[in-house]
Amino acid sequence: MQSRQIITLTTDFGNEGPFVGIIKGVVLNINPDINIVDICHNIRPYNILEAAFIIGESYKVFPRRTIHLVVVDPGVGTSRRPILVAAGSQYFVGPDNGVFTRIYKEHNDLDVIHIKAEHYFLKNRSSTFHGRDIFAPVAAWLSKGIDILKFGDAISDYVVLDIPKPVWLSENVIEGEIIYIDRFGNLNTNLRFDEIEKVKRTFININTKLIFRDINVPYVETYGLAEDKGLHYLLNSFGYYEIFVNRGNASEIFKVEVGEKVRLISPN
Amino acid sequence: MQSRQIITLTTDFGNEGPFVGIIKGVVLNINPDINIVDICHNIRPYNILEAAFIIGESYKVFPRRTIHLVVVDPGVGTSRRPILVAAGSQYFVGPDNGVFTRIYKEHNDLDVIHIKAEHYFLKNRSSTFHGRDIFAPVAAWLSKGIDILKFGDAISDYVVLDIPKPVWLSENVIEGEIIYIDRFGNLNTNLRFDEIEKVKRTFININTKLIFRDINVPYVETYGLAEDKGLHYLLNSFGYYEIFVNRGNASEIFKVEVGEKVRLISPN
Amino acid sequence: MQSRQIITLTTDFGNEGPFVGIIKGVVLNINPDINIVDICHNIRPYNILEAAFIIGESYKVFPRRTIHLVVVDPGVGTSRRPILVAAGSQYFVGPDNGVFTRIYKEHNDLDVIHIKAEHYFLKNRSSTFHGRDIFAPVAAWLSKGIDILKFGDAISDYVVLDIPKPVWLSENVIEGEIIYIDRFGNLNTNLRFDEIEKVKRTFININTKLIFRDINVPYVETYGLAEDKGLHYLLNSFGYYEIFVNRGNASEIFKVEVGEKVRLISPN
Repeated sequence: MQSRQIITLTTDFGNEGPFVGIIKGVVLNINPDINIVDICHNIRPYNILEAAFIIGESYKVFPRRTIHLVVVDPGVGTSRRPILVAAGSQYFVGPDNGVFTRIYKEHNDLDVIHIKAEHYFLKNRSSTFHGRDIFAPVAAWLSKGIDILKFGDAISDYVVLDIPKPVWLSENVIEGEIIYIDRFGNLNTNLRFDEIEKVKRTFININTKLIFRDINVPYVETYGLAEDKGLHYLLNSFGYYEIFVNRGNASEIFKVEVGEKVRLISPN
Repeated sequence: MQSRQIITLTTDFGNEGPFVGIIKGVVLNINPDINIVDICHNIRPYNILEAAFIIGESYKVFPRRTIHLVVVDPGVGTSRRPILVAAGSQYFVGPDNGVFTRIYKEHNDLDVIHIKAEHYFLKNRSSTFHGRDIFAPVAAWLSKGIDILKFGDAISDYVVLDIPKPVWLSENVIEGEIIYIDRFGNLNTNLRFDEIEKVKRTFININTKLIFRDINVPYVETYGLAEDKGLHYLLNSFGYYEIFVNRGNASEIFKVEVGEKVRLISPN
Repeated sequence: MQSRQIITLTTDFGNEGPFVGIIKGVVLNINPDINIVDICHNIRPYNILEAAFIIGESYKVFPRRTIHLVVVDPGVGTSRRPILVAAGSQYFVGPDNGVFTRIYKEHNDLDVIHIKAEHYFLKNRSSTFHGRDIFAPVAAWLSKGIDILKFGDAISDYVVLDIPKPVWLSENVIEGEIIYIDRFGNLNTNLRFDEIEKVKRTFININTKLIFRDINVPYVETYGLAEDKGLHYLLNSFGYYEIFVNRGNASEIFKVEVGEKVRLISPN
């Protein structure tokens, strides 16, 4: 027996409102045997970078042939293009606004299609809800086995976001930033452990409201091993440097937001 | 192969708590092959009008034979009746409190059944959670092909809500209201574009805290085409007049809530 | 036709972030035919007691062979054990921190397995996300029919939480407490109706901020029958004594939080 095809959903529609349900209905109306999987509907409104992070960390664990539908689309109805990406035996459907940047960076076997075949869209489409009118039906038709080249032409000038990268400020100082804060208030940075093993970590700086404060942050292997309510850091499950308070909300306690800088300094 | 039957869920139970999971378990215990689709669990508590709006905009895109379970039920356990509605090749199960008003208005081929057949209910049912004890098992048995007339008798005195309608105040002034505010703070009105094309729009009034202010609101085709952070309006994806701020939260910025009036005035 | 196996998810990951989606992907990658059902992802962070309540009230309605995956795991990566519980023809997978206490108390036919078979885990597992690396793959392999004893050895020293129990303060006074507040602000107590039918109820005390106030709380059969906006109580759908305000938020209006005491006093 062939397993059911999967379409995942990642949007900034929130868990209120009719928008998510409508997308599901459109998909099921075209392919009633699809398995729809919610990844996340609470991307901060219009936050393409956050969506790029979340789909970029999530897609890897899904089976081959999964179709990832991502609708964070502040430019809906303008000249930004709808696209379909085939990469690493999976598919991605959404707006050409950079939301798939992490997928582009991780794959050489990349096909990016500018979706143009209007007979796969809903009729009477709006200018404001392409999730319903274009992306959902295209994902659903794709799940039925339509060849990707039937949806439009390959392009190479797709939008790639400038994702913040750590910078070596000197031979022994690297500066990254907080790129994601989870529900627990843990501060996810863009500093990869494999990059920073070159430095012997001693302390980090957290830049709060323009005042650069030095906070000595000890390393522990996991959350529960931090023995007090101060800041600690660990290697998180995505391979990045993460700062946290054990059973506390580091973001709230220390007033740290996405975008703030983190520095690692070697001892000499 | 027969496709799996779909039951959608629309409730005010929130995404916390055990209530949604329990409803799913009851349904799956009766029909393990059902496809359960969450539409929305964050209807404002007891807000039947909001639920009527959300199911009314969502059901249309689902396939034939879909069963829509709607539990926004402040009168649970009182004399309000449990009902089953067949309309337009789809089904609706929930309390007779007007939550299906929009379905009634859009269909002539309407069967409304007062659910009475207690052998389809859970045993030992409570007075406070008919979602679990009556609506979920009825929807699940219905999905297994039980005829609708087995659940009870047809009625014609079902509750129809008084849904706010636009009013022509004079030959060139129409007044509607904000009926829904989405996660982005966009203000959805009950003014349909096909009704108001008769007037040449010039400005609208937004009634904020008893003071009626005139705000000139220009038209654009979609969100991203508004060039500043002022109010703009567009034709939204449901066919209604919608007021918004491009990448901003119009509801918060201008302190507009559901129920506030909107006037459209022709130039002479 | 064999019905699809069900895996339910109960976590404190929230409905934002990539964590829930990743767990689903890991499960589907191992068993693409599984039916994943979200129970709740908004357990208060690290709140094992709340998770124990929610899974304890939810699992009963699910079909035989359902696998309940519960990840509320502040001790992830420490010496706390991963466990698999077989009870009442269902299965439970999660950390050995007491989250399954209610299941233990309701079943004699109980097998608790310390999960040790690393070949069922993801390779390169982290110290911080055992939901992805251990619990999800174990649940997925279990759903494919692997015998529970293949995952590890039976243990009997699993962690049992001290769940708050009502106390008889005198022959005619019983004291319980608020154990759960739902989205509507209804106050769920741990006082079971079958226990307190021995007393003729007259009034209850709600201990607010150290001041013990007497509030006369009348009984009604269901929410909609309370005729004013004062506190009322009823027998809720789980069999417990519940205090509420009709179409109001009792928790907010009376500033009552989880853990506050409730006393029932007989008339003499």
